[in-house]
This record gives sequence, structure tokens and C-alpha cells, in this order.
Amino acid sequence: MKIGILGGGQLARMLALAGYPLGHSFTVLDPAEDACAGELCHHLCAKFDDRDALDELAARSEVITLDFENVPVDAVEYLATRVPVRPGAEALTASQDRLTEKNLFTELGIPTAPYLAIDDRDGLDRAIKELGMPAILKTRRLGYDGKGQARIESADDAEAAWEKLGGQPLLLEGLVPFQREFSVIAVRSVSGNTAMYPLTENRHKDGILVTSFAPASLPGFDKIAYGYADQLLRRLNYVGVLAIEFFAKDNQVIANEMAPRVHNSGHWTIDGAVTSQFENHLRAITDWPLGAPRAFGAAAMLNWIGAMPDPATALSYPDAHWHDYGKVPRAGRKVGHVNITSDNIVNLQAALAKFAMALGAHLQGAGADAFNTSRTH
Amino acid sequence: MKIGILGGGQLARMLALAGYPLGHSFTVLDPAEDACAGELCHHLCAKFDDRDALDELAARSEVITLDFENVPVDAVEYLATRVPVRPGAEALTASQDRLTEKNLFTELGIPTAPYLAIDDRDGLDRAIKELGMPAILKTRRLGYDGKGQARIESADDAEAAWEKLGGQPLLLEGLVPFQREFSVIAVRSVSGNTAMYPLTENRHKDGILVTSFAPASLPGFDKIAYGYADQLLRRLNYVGVLAIEFFAKDNQVIANEMAPRVHNSGHWTIDGAVTSQFENHLRAITDWPLGAPRAFGAAAMLNWIGAMPDPATALSYPDAHWHDYGKVPRAGRKVGHVNITSDNIVNLQAALAKFAMALGAHLQGAGADAFNTSRTH
Repeated sequence: MKIGILGGGQLARMLALAGYPLGHSFTVLDPAEDACAGELCHHLCAKFDDRDALDELAARSEVITLDFENVPVDAVEYLATRVPVRPGAEALTASQDRLTEKNLFTELGIPTAPYLAIDDRDGLDRAIKELGMPAILKTRRLGYDGKGQARIESADDAEAAWEKLGGQPLLLEGLVPFQREFSVIAVRSVSGNTAMYPLTENRHKDGILVTSFAPASLPGFDKIAYGYADQLLRRLNYVGVLAIEFFAKDNQVIANEMAPRVHNSGHWTIDGAVTSQFENHLRAITDWPLGAPRAFGAAAMLNWIGAMPDPATALSYPDAHWHDYGKVPRAGRKVGHVNITSDNIVNLQAALAKFAMALGAHLQGAGADAFNTSRTH
Repeated sequence: MKIGILGGGQLARMLALAGYPLGHSFTVLDPAEDACAGELCHHLCAKFDDRDALDELAARSEVITLDFENVPVDAVEYLATRVPVRPGAEALTASQDRLTEKNLFTELGIPTAPYLAIDDRDGLDRAIKELGMPAILKTRRLGYDGKGQARIESADDAEAAWEKLGGQPLLLEGLVPFQREFSVIAVRSVSGNTAMYPLTENRHKDGILVTSFAPASLPGFDKIAYGYADQLLRRLNYVGVLAIEFFAKDNQVIANEMAPRVHNSGHWTIDGAVTSQFENHLRAITDWPLGAPRAFGAAAMLNWIGAMPDPATALSYPDAHWHDYGKVPRAGRKVGHVNITSDNIVNLQAALAKFAMALGAHLQGAGADAFNTSRTH
């Protein structure tokens, strides 16, 4: 099938790599001249609201999907009059605005951090009074990888946060003193078939995902989280991969946020699961049967942020897999990842301990403790 | 790295799919305008002896490899003065001519079917007298997928075979009444590191590979076959994947032929092994560490010959993986394959039995018996 993708970054690139064996061809729309999916897809270099480019994308596509959730809903609605867009405008609308997203969680009875919408400076003070400190002020729109956020622990922090983020729709969130972070990668096809990957445990640094481990050892949490994912998929009549990030606090499962697309915390599935999240996303939007999401054993994913290290070091471990996105190195930019797989978690931990020493300098401050998957802190 | 490939068929296509995540880019040289690797590689459309095209390929490449062993050795020698070609002219020379190949097997003490070179019609009669019938007359060059062969069981057959193939360098081979056919996919890097995949059992029809199963249950044969593969790799100072096809006759391991490239019987490794043959070929020629060749469990590969069936049927089994080469359907043409994986051979057999029924019409005459991997006939 001819598949169009809004956005041409590494997610689009990995979708194309998974999709060529399925017999598909790809066109990406991305304003960046050096969009890294452009190396192996037809690339329309234009803004997401460029009607001519949208027309051409529609003409070149039998189904359209996205690698980026912050495309204008207008553009998706315009495209959807001509070609199916999966996931569609409803899922995008729900996830582009943190308030809409949290209201949806609340409507479905999915626990989330306490939150209040903020419209002005006084509103911020009232919200701090109600939710207490520490709290996090967030923009309602365009937040990802820790962008558009400010932590508030004092009146001075509140002033600084307002200085930084004021003047746009905001949200104050109470801080959840969680012990662990995990995500569910869920997928639903046009026909309504669903598959859920094993829970993935995630470690962030400065709001950016650094490492993931799967299957996460969180007994009992899987059924609860899968239930929430299933509710969201059905409520949004969702098609494709939906990623939902959760906090684990004591024995509670608290939704943090969701992304209507393939997700960084699902990158381990390329080498660690029977069917990757990328392949299953494509199977879902083309209404093919879904592939098994089962993990072969245990897997870890380490993001390369800023620059790729020497592959020889990482690949000296024979069950390591290299994923270079073909991007120009730049501070804070996700340029690639490595997947480390093993038959079981014990062997994986041993491999990671060795690997962490060899690659210490490249772990972006995550440090060796990120490799102790049994920590409880 | 910038990698050039002589030949732009499905093997080049699957090399590129394995190579983009490693950060490589690809240029293929292929005279066919619709060469299927052209969809995701830069395609130089020219003959293999076109010096301008070879110059351009050399200029665009840091290392060159091949997806086709019948490229002119001259072209490889010309390229090798500018850019490393891996595997090189020596391996190509050895494998392009059945006589050279068999002489090499014999020199290394690797058992092979009895053979005699044939230069004229009288020579054929003398060879039949010496080797007996049935025997197979083969062209020394350009034979693959059962092409350039004629079976001889009578004087009439001999006449017909000569009619069909006479006038070029030929070889008569005594028929080996083997019970099973298997192959070794071996790989050796520039630094001399080697890896060998589990033995793969193969079923052919009319000289074309139809199905492969791995790991093959051939106790004791692996050590012998790995020993032969290791001798060949070292003798040829080989770099890249080398595929060697064997007959199993009683308790003997008899070499049939070899291919200096990734091989159809290794396609199961894409989904069934920790590292695919395509990735390891690239790691070998760029001198990266080799990845583990270990199988996750059991795997079967079914070739689609002539046309692709409906994916929905094959993929109704959730551990099936689709591989469409993006080729125009044509009788006798390999257009794709499906890999079926499972935790173990018992479950794989059960899956295949079910799968064979659903796909009966597409099994190209291999029939359901091809799925009984425990047959001994």
C-alpha cells in the first residue's frame, strides 16, 4: 500500500524500515530538509499547513499516519476528507492538549496526578494553594521531552515559572511521589483487534527518556494498565499504536500522559519482541492481522542523545543491536539507540553491568545505577 | 558507511533494510530498470561491465559487496583497485565455475559428488561410463535455481542433454542418493572473526528452494559441516556471508555447492535469529563485531514463487512475518517469503500443519508433506 506519514523523523524512518517488507511504499511530509526518513522515503519538504503539500500527500497515499502528535488537527481533518488518517483527529485532539487528555483520563476513571487549568497569574496562586507544593507548571500544548515545564517548590519558583511559561494556556499538576515509571504500548487495528506489549520500565533524565527495560517486573500492574489502555483505545475508536506512560506509586497505577503514535519506550520491540511496534502499527492501520507482541526474553533500550558513540564498543556484546537514525549530531537530540537482548533478566543485568562500564561516558548521566533494574528507591 | 552493491535484487534490498539502522547508505548497480532494491537505494542502472558505471559506483562507495555471484570477475578486479570489494575476486572465481568449486572442495578434503569435466560429446560418453547413471550434466557457469542442468538416466537422455547444453564448458556429476539437504550460513569479518548459524534444512522443487527449517535436527552433522565451512572461509580469506549447501547421505556430509553471498536458505534469520544474515554480512564487510547467530527457537521459511498470496491468510498466525520484495509477479520468480517462528519445533510443526492447510494452493506443489519436518524418506 502507499502510506503517507505526517512527520519524517526517526519514527517515520523506522516505520518505513518495518513497512518495506510488508510491500508498502512511503511518502513523508516534513518541513525539515534533512528529515532523516527522507533517506528511504519520498520526502515532501513543506509545512504541515501547506495545502498544496497536503494535496500531494493525499494523492500519493492510500492511508496516512503520523510520527509526531503536534501536527495541526486542521491538516488532519483536511486530509481525512480524502484519505483515511489513522489515528485520526479525535485522538490527536485528545492528546495535543494536556487538559483535554487529563479530562479524558478522569472521565474514564483512570487515576492521574491532581491538576488544575491556569488562565492567569492569580489562577496560578489559587492552584498552588489548592494542590500544594511541589507542583509542576506545564504548557497545555507542545510539551514533549521535558519541554514546556517548570517545577514549583516556593513562591519564588512560582514567579520564575510564570515568567517562563505565562501568557499561554497552562496546567498545574501536583507532584506524584512515584517509585517507578512504566509504559504500555497498545495497538488496535481497523477491525478492532488489539495487542499489548509487555510493560516497559522507563528512566528519564531532564525529561528525556534515557533507558527502557522490558518486560518490567511489576506484578499485578499489567492487568490494571492494560485495562486502562483498552478503555482509551475503545473510547477513541483508536487505530494504530497508542503509548501510555504511567507512574507506579506504592500499589497505584497513575496515568501520566499518552502519545498517539509509536513511542521511544517501544523501541526495544524491534529486536526483543516477535513483532515490533512499528510493524504492528502498520498492520493496524492497513487492517492486517496483528503480530504477536510477545517478548523473546528480556530487553533493554539505551538512547543515544547528542551523538552516536563508537559502535564497536556497544556491539562487542553479541546480542546488541545498533539503531542509527542518520541524523546530524546536536546537543539534546535523540540520534539513535541500542537494544540489548538476552534470554532472561538475570543474564541481561549481567550484560548491562559490563556494557555500562564500557560505555560509561556515553550514558548521558544516567549512570550505572540506571542498570540496576531491581532498585526500589 | 557508503556501501556499494553489485546487483540490486531482493538480497540487496534486504541488505539495505538491515543496513540503514547501522547508519549505512547504499548504491546498487543493476542493469534492470525495475531492480527491487532501487526503491530504497540509489540505483545505477547499467551493465556490470560498464566502466563509467563502475567508476561511479566506486566513487559512491567505501566498500563494495554483491547480491549476485555471476558478476564478471573483471569488474570486481577493476573495482578492487579503488575500493575494497568483499567478498573478493578469489571467492567469486572459485564459485562461478562448478569445476573450480569442486576442485576446491576436493583440495580441502571436503566430500562432494563424483564429477568429471566434459569438453566434447565423446567426453560425455566416457564420463557416463565412468560415473554411471543416473547422473546430472551441468553447465560449469551461470547455473542457479536449477538452471543449466539435465538429468541423464539413459543414452537418449544423454543425447537430449547434449542437445540442450552442449557447446559450452560442462561437468557431469554422479547422482548422490541423499536423504536430506541442508545448508550452513557462515560469516567471517575483515578481522577474521567468524560466526555460523544453526544448520538449515532445505526442500527444493525443480531446483528452486521452496522451504527451509532451522535449526535442522541433524545431530553430529553440524560439527562436520562447520569444520568444512571454516576451512573454506580461511582458504579463501573470505569476508562476508558464505552459504554452503550439503547433502546428508546416511551419516555422510557431502558438499553440493556454495554461494559467496547472503542466501535464500538464510532468510529465516531475519525473524528467527538474534542477528540476521544480512546484518552480519554488513558487520563483516565493515569489520564491526559480529552479532550472535543464535536461533530464538524454531523457524520455517516459505518462498513465494511467481506471485504473493493474500497476506491476511498467512498472517492469521501471529508469529508469521511477511517479506514482499516489491517485484512484479512472473512465473518462476522469487517474489517474497514468509517466516514462521515458534519457541520450539513441536509448536512450529503444529503451526505449519494449520498454515499449510490454509495456504495449500500457494505452496507451489511442495505440498503438505514439506511441512513434516520429521520425515526420513
